Amino acid sequence: MFVEVVTTGSELLLGEIVNENSRYLSRELNALGYSVIYHTTVGDNPERMEGVLRTALQRADIVITTGGLGPTQGDMTKIIGARVMGVPLVYHEEIAEAIGEWVTAHHPDRELTENQKRQAMIPEGAVVFSNGAGTAPGTALKKGEKLLVHLPGPPLEMRWMYEHRLKPYLIRTFGSQGHIESLYMKIYDMGEAFIEDKLMDLIKGQSNPTLAMYARPGFVEVRITARAQTEEEARALMEPVRQELQKRLHRAAVTYNQETMAALLGRILKEKKMTVSAAESCTGGLVGSLITDVAGSSAYFLGSAGTYCNAMKEHILGVSADTLAAYTEVSSQTAAEMADGSRRLYGSDLAISTTGIAGPSGGSREKPVGLVYTGISGPRGTVTHKDIYPGDRTEVKRRAATRAVYYAVQYLLEHTEQE
Amino acid sequence: MFVEVVTTGSELLLGEIVNENSRYLSRELNALGYSVIYHTTVGDNPERMEGVLRTALQRADIVITTGGLGPTQGDMTKIIGARVMGVPLVYHEEIAEAIGEWVTAHHPDRELTENQKRQAMIPEGAVVFSNGAGTAPGTALKKGEKLLVHLPGPPLEMRWMYEHRLKPYLIRTFGSQGHIESLYMKIYDMGEAFIEDKLMDLIKGQSNPTLAMYARPGFVEVRITARAQTEEEARALMEPVRQELQKRLHRAAVTYNQETMAALLGRILKEKKMTVSAAESCTGGLVGSLITDVAGSSAYFLGSAGTYCNAMKEHILGVSADTLAAYTEVSSQTAAEMADGSRRLYGSDLAISTTGIAGPSGGSREKPVGLVYTGISGPRGTVTHKDIYPGDRTEVKRRAATRAVYYAVQYLLEHTEQE
Repeated sequence: MFVEVVTTGSELLLGEIVNENSRYLSRELNALGYSVIYHTTVGDNPERMEGVLRTALQRADIVITTGGLGPTQGDMTKIIGARVMGVPLVYHEEIAEAIGEWVTAHHPDRELTENQKRQAMIPEGAVVFSNGAGTAPGTALKKGEKLLVHLPGPPLEMRWMYEHRLKPYLIRTFGSQGHIESLYMKIYDMGEAFIEDKLMDLIKGQSNPTLAMYARPGFVEVRITARAQTEEEARALMEPVRQELQKRLHRAAVTYNQETMAALLGRILKEKKMTVSAAESCTGGLVGSLITDVAGSSAYFLGSAGTYCNAMKEHILGVSADTLAAYTEVSSQTAAEMADGSRRLYGSDLAISTTGIAGPSGGSREKPVGLVYTGISGPRGTVTHKDIYPGDRTEVKRRAATRAVYYAVQYLLEHTEQE
Repeated sequence: MFVEVVTTGSELLLGEIVNENSRYLSRELNALGYSVIYHTTVGDNPERMEGVLRTALQRADIVITTGGLGPTQGDMTKIIGARVMGVPLVYHEEIAEAIGEWVTAHHPDRELTENQKRQAMIPEGAVVFSNGAGTAPGTALKKGEKLLVHLPGPPLEMRWMYEHRLKPYLIRTFGSQGHIESLYMKIYDMGEAFIEDKLMDLIKGQSNPTLAMYARPGFVEVRITARAQTEEEARALMEPVRQELQKRLHRAAVTYNQETMAALLGRILKEKKMTVSAAESCTGGLVGSLITDVAGSSAYFLGSAGTYCNAMKEHILGVSADTLAAYTEVSSQTAAEMADGSRRLYGSDLAISTTGIAGPSGGSREKPVGLVYTGISGPRGTVTHKDIYPGDRTEVKRRAATRAVYYAVQYLLEHTEQE
């Protein structure tokens, strides 16, 4: 079945925010087996919105709107929707009561306003989706072969309503549309062009599963998508392709789907009962921040010593003045001594260090902006890596920090498995 | 003049990426005085794309497409565009040569393929936008009152083409559309509802400038937008509103537009010739990372001591064991001693500390998830702040780190101005 997602709101047309609602609904609906074939955005203008909804109902089976369900005069989606579907709006006492309870619970000093009562006006014959994350109810109105759904606009409410209301409703009403399953394989130390070269025949030749590639900050994502009747069948279709990718790319470490490299590092450290610390110059604390983004990281993360100036590299980490003088702070020697120093300072089993030139100034011909040395110090010795990252200051920092965590995982897998 | 932005590409309809091109073009075109009234996204399907372009050309004066100009068979935007405008495609020898030069320069081992030659087919009568950031040329075809523009899809190429080709073309062709100017005022320590309450009459009553509010991670953004003939006139319209906001909200520190609180901190520190360091527990390094996102921060940032475990709070920062035993690590006493310890360790003029419970576990009735103490230690003594932040682990970290930088600015403004 074909779906059009219609988002409303002038902040979208003014370019103030990206359209996260369209992205979210598209991903979710595709996973359920629906084909999203149009996105449309329109502002708070009754004629334009009416035209958009009429066009959408002609060219799609299911039209889902987000936004314009709030209590203000500008919130007109439901009114226009009812007009286009040819039904009146009717007042629902129990919805008004529910809104009243929500308002009282969250703002004990306020009373229900006339505006808020408007939210209890519902297109006649519509299924009402009560809102567990806000006040505006959603609706679904089916007429003949067409379905018009209204969801609230704030992303948190919209997601809650999709997950708890619309998704079950679609499954109940239309049954299974088959299943589309995607697996995202994240590669941390190869360029997009290089990976594409290794996978070109697969990318071009496959129809189910399909393969696609995306450059992300600090890694490349390869998406495998399969369509089948059930989730299990879809997974079974994907598995041989995943193995083929593993074989062709044979990386020390990849992660899948939402798992970050820092989460994988955490899993390995917990398994090996090891602790980790960091020493950061050019990343400024971002390595520590990535590691502590993982819930439960206090079990293995001891801390990160940020040493942005050379005096602190000496004072706190014990990097030797001779090393700094002979090789400068941006060198593999300094990276190695920083990592060793962090391991000593924290008494950790493994330490990660970064030192480099995040830019925009400070680069030279020999040491350009983007040059970063990473050190990994552990029970089997200290290794360093040299990379030159593209992008602006924050991008260099992000790439360097992500890659540093990757190098730590690589070290653990390569250096401790033989033991 | 009314504009519709038409984006193409199945990765948008699959929900794999957010629609950054629509956001970018909308913001830019609004600033030039054009009204963007629709966004539409459609996939690589000839019939649907034709329908979308016909509808767009009926309801808007200017239709701008992005994507589908590449060398593959799926890239069909130009073909459909020419069909809808009723003109043939013609081969441009000089464009083919330019593409050939680009390919040779970037891939010396490759020859121009038949597919790449397709990129040199241009709608008859169109102005050609040569592409300084890739191979696919853009086009602008004017016929009667309607203008159809094709830009490439990769965001970097699209932005380059807008800035260097389409923007000058629009100004040349249509002259000034007046000027729309926006100012974004960022408030770091007041909730959205509280700010709305203080500004409600302004938000409702104004037509030029207009006011709008958005909750962002760690701050609230108030947008002032004015329309006038020139940038100066627009700014003059905004200034009294800005002053009124300052008066009503009277914050110690706000930032405007792209400036972050860390950038403001940097400006003040440089002005006062002071240095800063940090000591981070629950933020894991994110305070240091935010500070070092600012170019030139090495002039005043000495480093951040991440101490995720209590032993390191004692060992590195000199927090007393008695304090930790009596008040635990999540307390204003510990935050104060961490900040003092960081100032001692780095020899900095000002130090920022954070300690709290990022979650999802570790909370209790007295000390819930999201509870964060921030300490600021400086020449006029040590102050602490207690906050409870909503959201998941990464959100608590982000809010706490952003607010910590804000507290440092507040300290500098309040505690050093009397000197």
